[in-house]
Amino acid sequence: MEIGALLVGLAIVWIAAKAAGEGMERLGQTAVLGELLAGVVIGPGVLGLVHESEILHAFAELGVVILLFEVGLESDLSDLLQAGLQSTLVALVGMAVPFMLGFAVMRTLGQPPLVAVFVGAALTATSVGITARVLADLGRLQDPAAKVVLGAAIVDDVLGLMILAVVTGVAQAGNVSPAAVTVLVAKASVFLVGAIALGIRLAPPAMRWVGRLRARGSLIVYAVVAAVGLAAAADALGLAAIVGAFAAGLVLAGTERRHHLKEQIKPVADLLVPIFFVTIGMKVQPAALNPFAPGAELMAIIALTTVAIVSKLVSGLAVYQRGVRRWAVGVGMIPRGEVGLIFAGVGLAAGVVAEGLYSALVVTVMLTTFAAPPWLKALYRPRADAINATRPGARRTRSPDGSD
Amino acid sequence: MEIGALLVGLAIVWIAAKAAGEGMERLGQTAVLGELLAGVVIGPGVLGLVHESEILHAFAELGVVILLFEVGLESDLSDLLQAGLQSTLVALVGMAVPFMLGFAVMRTLGQPPLVAVFVGAALTATSVGITARVLADLGRLQDPAAKVVLGAAIVDDVLGLMILAVVTGVAQAGNVSPAAVTVLVAKASVFLVGAIALGIRLAPPAMRWVGRLRARGSLIVYAVVAAVGLAAAADALGLAAIVGAFAAGLVLAGTERRHHLKEQIKPVADLLVPIFFVTIGMKVQPAALNPFAPGAELMAIIALTTVAIVSKLVSGLAVYQRGVRRWAVGVGMIPRGEVGLIFAGVGLAAGVVAEGLYSALVVTVMLTTFAAPPWLKALYRPRADAINATRPGARRTRSPDGSD
Repeated sequence: MEIGALLVGLAIVWIAAKAAGEGMERLGQTAVLGELLAGVVIGPGVLGLVHESEILHAFAELGVVILLFEVGLESDLSDLLQAGLQSTLVALVGMAVPFMLGFAVMRTLGQPPLVAVFVGAALTATSVGITARVLADLGRLQDPAAKVVLGAAIVDDVLGLMILAVVTGVAQAGNVSPAAVTVLVAKASVFLVGAIALGIRLAPPAMRWVGRLRARGSLIVYAVVAAVGLAAAADALGLAAIVGAFAAGLVLAGTERRHHLKEQIKPVADLLVPIFFVTIGMKVQPAALNPFAPGAELMAIIALTTVAIVSKLVSGLAVYQRGVRRWAVGVGMIPRGEVGLIFAGVGLAAGVVAEGLYSALVVTVMLTTFAAPPWLKALYRPRADAINATRPGARRTRSPDGSD
Repeated sequence: MEIGALLVGLAIVWIAAKAAGEGMERLGQTAVLGELLAGVVIGPGVLGLVHESEILHAFAELGVVILLFEVGLESDLSDLLQAGLQSTLVALVGMAVPFMLGFAVMRTLGQPPLVAVFVGAALTATSVGITARVLADLGRLQDPAAKVVLGAAIVDDVLGLMILAVVTGVAQAGNVSPAAVTVLVAKASVFLVGAIALGIRLAPPAMRWVGRLRARGSLIVYAVVAAVGLAAAADALGLAAIVGAFAAGLVLAGTERRHHLKEQIKPVADLLVPIFFVTIGMKVQPAALNPFAPGAELMAIIALTTVAIVSKLVSGLAVYQRGVRRWAVGVGMIPRGEVGLIFAGVGLAAGVVAEGLYSALVVTVMLTTFAAPPWLKALYRPRADAINATRPGARRTRSPDGSD
């Protein structure tokens, strides 16, 4: 790619993302919703100003790694551990119910069992990226429900990869080896526990060592190396890269340099994260969003979207801890985001899911992704007694002097 | 490219850059020298850990845009205008002398006139990136000599592109149209004057508008959009993209948000700029740096490097302003960097410069690039009476609390 095309592409992505994000905030919605819609509009389906490319994909991948790293930095390990059992329960309910309901609805609509298994599996996904970004925009990452949802989304990411391995195996070979599933579970557990247990011991002395370095920018570069390195390690083990990035942030959140680090990662995230959400929006074919377009499977879309939303709301019923808002947990689990799109894409590629059903799945994924941000925002609407602390546009992540 | 490979590649580049940069600072040199050497070592010529790719190239290109934007932010337009005539004189002397000496030496070594013209032209280049980075690392961007050198390097970039157009035309067609050269000169002048004149009027109200936006990160994103947008405009006009990025920084340096902006662009530059210098180092074939390897043109290397260094030092004699250090100006003009490599590559591609002479040119470019940072650092060595203000490792760009 020529440098001019690269720079123009980035400028368009950034302008569209900020303009649409600002518009959504003014309308009382969250910026991430605007960024997703900006991607739909500038993408190949509508204006065609920017096309997917390997380079844009690379910036987007780095963007989601930085996002989960930043979310990890804002999190507290002991809080997450406290929510651990609760999160796991929410994740299990939030996967079992969508799977079973999705399977049942597909069978009712006359689909063969293999297709029903695949659609059910696709509905189990939770996009930790969307929910984390919405909660961050609302300044609610410290809310008890946010901790449960983030923990559940991480568990869901790990379990979801196993389900993907299983259904891909079923689709390709007609069966799946229990040994392979066991290995995947073991790798994921060892990685997460090992990375965090080692990290909380090594991070404080490592950060003190970085503090003694003379070269400019050592803190931010080594911190991002930790995020990128653990993300690559997770990827190498067959897990989602963002799980590693989150672990890196969580570990560095326990060091004394965390405040400097949060301040320095912020402008980097401001630049890279919107690229990720815009490219998700770019994957949408707006024709597929129109239920009256030829080939649209209106029945399937209505049925799948209803199942997708209701079944994740049910996961809120798995909340047993006091002070955790069930509705916020249920709604926070709804967006399927890029994870749901991966399932749909694998199903299409494996020849299990037909073109029409694939479009219906994509529409369902997008509807759940677009529905959750305003719904969460409404749930967290400031009450009259707290209007000053949570006025629209106020964010915890703002710097103390009010600048951004 | 798979996400794992991308993340591993970035981690290697960052670790190598910071480790080598830190080592060089400890040895009393500048970090950028370490980053260049890190690129040689991890590149295809030695360890082969990282290879050039479209994606790495994209990160590097964005890095040099951010670097020149940051340098522009640190600059003051009235200072630059004051140094304008002085800079132009230095640039003209610093291009005429290398061209004539290079031409004469090549003719003496028995090369045909066309080859001599090409080599002479290649020696006219000045890498504003290297010099700007060294001066920034030394905290000397406000030094009068720094302003003259930066201005001269910008003039050199603009004139260099014209020379490149001329010699490419000569190499390809055997002639060049004076009309084409005139158009290029006109475009460059109109762009620079127009962008800056418009920018200083539009930037303050635009920044006030950005200050009223609610979405997180609006300041940094719109500022980078300005840098990337003007860089793309310069590129579209056939100028170097970095000229546009510098103009954007210069314009925003005149707004009241410049302090916030400098603070926020810093971590972004810390991450992206080293990628640029590492990829420059990666282009070096270490075998070409060994004068005793078969095929090395020892005579040509010695002659060209001597000419390259002496002829740019002469440009310091064009300093007539009081208080501007002639040696610092002359040495600051020495590094050819990526601009020299572009000339050498075009010469090779056009079939004018033979393989052996190409390697000699590359060695010359690298020697000048590696020579300037320690030399400049030595020239700016703190005197005993100023030891506290300029102790090694102290930089103007450090944040007030001593963190980096």
